[in-house]
Amino acid sequence: MTVTYEDVTGAARRIAGHVLRTPVLEVSPGLFLKLEQLQHAGSFKTRGAFNRILSAGELPPAGVIAASGGNHGLAVAHAARALGIRAEIFVPEVTSPVKVAGLRALGAQIRQTGALYAQAAEAAAKRAAETGALAVHAYDQPEVVAGQGTLGLELTGQVPGVDTILVAVGGGGLVAGVTVGSGALGGGTPGEGIGERAPDEGTGERTSGEGTRGPRIVAVEPELSRALHEALRAGEPVQVPVSGVAADALGASRAGGLAYAICSQAAAEGSLVSVLVPDEAIVAARRALWERHRVAAEHAGAAAYAALLSGAYTPAPGERVAVVICGANTDPSTLTAE
Amino acid sequence: MTVTYEDVTGAARRIAGHVLRTPVLEVSPGLFLKLEQLQHAGSFKTRGAFNRILSAGELPPAGVIAASGGNHGLAVAHAARALGIRAEIFVPEVTSPVKVAGLRALGAQIRQTGALYAQAAEAAAKRAAETGALAVHAYDQPEVVAGQGTLGLELTGQVPGVDTILVAVGGGGLVAGVTVGSGALGGGTPGEGIGERAPDEGTGERTSGEGTRGPRIVAVEPELSRALHEALRAGEPVQVPVSGVAADALGASRAGGLAYAICSQAAAEGSLVSVLVPDEAIVAARRALWERHRVAAEHAGAAAYAALLSGAYTPAPGERVAVVICGANTDPSTLTAE
Ligand SMILES: Cc1ncc(COP(=O)(O)O)c(C=O)c1O
Ligand SMILES: Cc1ncc(COP(=O)(O)O)c(C=O)c1O
Repeated sequence: MTVTYEDVTGAARRIAGHVLRTPVLEVSPGLFLKLEQLQHAGSFKTRGAFNRILSAGELPPAGVIAASGGNHGLAVAHAARALGIRAEIFVPEVTSPVKVAGLRALGAQIRQTGALYAQAAEAAAKRAAETGALAVHAYDQPEVVAGQGTLGLELTGQVPGVDTILVAVGGGGLVAGVTVGSGALGGGTPGEGIGERAPDEGTGERTSGEGTRGPRIVAVEPELSRALHEALRAGEPVQVPVSGVAADALGASRAGGLAYAICSQAAAEGSLVSVLVPDEAIVAARRALWERHRVAAEHAGAAAYAALLSGAYTPAPGERVAVVICGANTDPSTLTAE
Repeated sequence: MTVTYEDVTGAARRIAGHVLRTPVLEVSPGLFLKLEQLQHAGSFKTRGAFNRILSAGELPPAGVIAASGGNHGLAVAHAARALGIRAEIFVPEVTSPVKVAGLRALGAQIRQTGALYAQAAEAAAKRAAETGALAVHAYDQPEVVAGQGTLGLELTGQVPGVDTILVAVGGGGLVAGVTVGSGALGGGTPGEGIGERAPDEGTGERTSGEGTRGPRIVAVEPELSRALHEALRAGEPVQVPVSGVAADALGASRAGGLAYAICSQAAAEGSLVSVLVPDEAIVAARRALWERHRVAAEHAGAAAYAALLSGAYTPAPGERVAVVICGANTDPSTLTAE
């Protein structure tokens, strides 16, 4: 089971009209911010949610079900409301009242169950089996990955010749989708010579402007929450501890199977590198996005930019770099306060 | 003295590379937000500042001078720093320490003089005469208006066939520039049949898609600060009282002479209408921009959107409407607080 470029183009056709084509801002020559935090419901998760739901054909009367007190829950609730179907969202008991209120405002039915996310997810799965509702996973379903991939497809259209795309990673649905949808995997979009690229000789170096090559993906994780990084080291998804400022969105304790398969293949081809950023860099990047560019982002939404500012990833001169700003579900009073 | 379409295209060439091409977000079919609040220094004022300074040829050793504790001051200070020249900014004594610190951080020399803006402006003019520094007016200089006009030129390129552009008005530099730069004045860009348009018969109605027509401009002012509205009624710029939530940016007590000349001509042609919005509508629009779209704007930056949300301007079905979000120099903690 994997996700192909055609799955992504199919997803793009399916969800067009339901999601926004978010704009790109060139903040300095060759440096582009993909402003996906402006997406409906405040994050890219809306893409995957719509694609999963619209792929299902006839929907069960029970509607859709998901587990997440965060952006995924908001996205599923938003999509369900837009499509006029029911949504039941399972959230851990710790979920803040503000988030619960936000979900409720979108018309979702909320179930607060279990102390941790894993327990809420378990309860959601059990309930889906009972009611027949369509379960929408936060990152490990092909339709979800393909939906997130439409961001990569869109971005390569907006930034022709982009060399490098920096993407934040939680469970890996976004980075896997973007790896496929941007044509990074296999060396380019199908029409542009897929498979014609020789794999890198392990240097991690890629020269821009080689025509048939897709972009390189930089997968960015917090040091304190690095499920994909450890999976790539271990050769399979492994359990990791999670904490830190972005854990509410990037805190998956194990990379998705689909994400691991796609990202490990891309890493082997030399078209994906995994980097880590400390929390201080994320905080500083979030603040810089506001101070310099009036872009309001949540911590997870600033993680990819942090890789650039902190030097965790340093572009070559002339490299065309796109940074995905992936979420803004945040209290704006904290943009300048910390 | 006026400003022509060629002045705007010239300005666009002059300031390219110094200002950002700010992106457009289509939030629903046919409704576009021009995200100018993402401009360097947080507002469109940067366009006019660069154009005025770069038009001056050799700059005096004393550098540039301006009066404004707000966005204009920030823009001039930003441009001066980028160009490596001195900037002296006169601000009224009431200017908040935060704003003074912001200006200082940009390397400007600050002079706090007089209780009101008018006194600071007077002091700046006097000082410019002494030092020979280049004075950059906040709205009533041709190079400033032409610079702001590049926003209109850019926008018509980004939203082909745009029917209507909503713009906030203070002294009127922005709206006048956009009226010229978008091709609204005289019925279209020169290459597209300038002068071929019959003036409206006073109905204010315009049909979209007539080919040679430029867009219609909706000039939006707060009810409590309406210098252009009263100038258009009186047949000349007149003194008005100013107050309200957006007065720090839209609080000009008299419309600029250039702005009046351009806008009254456009109004006579039927290509500009002036509308007013109550403060509550501005507050609600600012909040909606954040809640719905994760766009952080200051009150002035949300005024044009307020005209739409409040029904002060109601587009016809199928009308292609662009709303200029013109500034975000604001405390983000107030985005959700009021
Ligand atoms: C803002 C934001 N960025 C990134 C991620 C990570 O996405 P993924 O789990 O697909 O890797 C999330 C997940 O919730 C998110 O909300
Ligand atoms: C954010 C913002 N919008 C609109 C305006 C009004 O511009 P003008 O004086 O050119 O009409 C200003 C002026 O300071 C501003 O700062």
